[in-house]
Amino acid sequence: MAGRSEIDALIEMMAKLPGLGPRSARRAVLHLIRKRAVLLQPLAEQMETVARTARECLNCGSVGTSDICEICSDEARATGLLCVVEDVADLWAMERSGVFKGRYHVLGGTLSALDAIGPEELHIPKLLDRVAGEEIEEVILALNATIDGQTTAHYIADQLEGRVRLSSLAQGVPIGGELDYLDDGTITAALNARKSL
Amino acid sequence: MAGRSEIDALIEMMAKLPGLGPRSARRAVLHLIRKRAVLLQPLAEQMETVARTARECLNCGSVGTSDICEICSDEARATGLLCVVEDVADLWAMERSGVFKGRYHVLGGTLSALDAIGPEELHIPKLLDRVAGEEIEEVILALNATIDGQTTAHYIADQLEGRVRLSSLAQGVPIGGELDYLDDGTITAALNARKSL
Repeated sequence: MAGRSEIDALIEMMAKLPGLGPRSARRAVLHLIRKRAVLLQPLAEQMETVARTARECLNCGSVGTSDICEICSDEARATGLLCVVEDVADLWAMERSGVFKGRYHVLGGTLSALDAIGPEELHIPKLLDRVAGEEIEEVILALNATIDGQTTAHYIADQLEGRVRLSSLAQGVPIGGELDYLDDGTITAALNARKSL
Repeated sequence: MAGRSEIDALIEMMAKLPGLGPRSARRAVLHLIRKRAVLLQPLAEQMETVARTARECLNCGSVGTSDICEICSDEARATGLLCVVEDVADLWAMERSGVFKGRYHVLGGTLSALDAIGPEELHIPKLLDRVAGEEIEEVILALNATIDGQTTAHYIADQLEGRVRLSSLAQGVPIGGELDYLDDGTITAALNARKSL
């Protein structure tokens, strides 16, 4: 179907996005086409704007629209606290909680022997530079509680040992969590880190 | 976070697409930003192209990039067979099967008393016009096997009765389907429409 090729090309591109497949891409594109003036055109323009302006923060590795992101350039957040996260989605999750008022360092992934990702492929050298150069008192390792995340946390802890105070997020029962639905590892961690009342 | 607002605006727009929510929209946008030169920019341009060129076929209600879609303007498909579907996604599903060589009529939805959708809100008057004006021998009602779909099929059948040969898709066990996983309605339909061997 020659004349539908532009629409097919769009569906194909959308289908490659994480979380979408061919079927949901078709549904999304049809939805956009039905409301092309109020949805598709503005979405195209917004993507164009972001493609033109988005960049990685030269300091922390987060994404924003300037060379130094808002968090890094926010003087109110110069607290000497540095939170290390795997990727920008994790930084956004921390920000949504609204409780952390320090700055971040985004690694851009985790160490992985299988995928041949070593410290140089991540922003680990830059992290060591920052700890050496900025007035950082404490580094919070907020990596995911996965094997790769914890391996990476251990590696960074080794590198920074003795140079700065180190901490990691507490592990335990999530708020609202029911024991019956938790895995053994979480229960073990919660039990080992039990608090006296 | 002022400077992230362009990115936030894009996430908000993506989150409204069917099949996506806030979390998958964030993941998709981060993915696009990471590969903004090879993914985000081309996607923005393709959306712009589709927003500019996509239109509804004036004859059948499908979408394409010309006033009369390729199927309607394909002389090889002038077979006197007209397949009535609820929406463009259904037309695309029929086309993927590759077995139907007639033309289509896209209703744009189903009759629904609850949503105040009557025949005039759908392309039903246009369908009656086509049956009167084109040399159509058979109308295949390929509406979804839902209450609304079947109500709509009955309404159309009433309108067209005696004016053209009418048929509907067979109902029964899907290919590869296991009886144990089928609902009672499907089993009843398959039993009632059983074929002698």
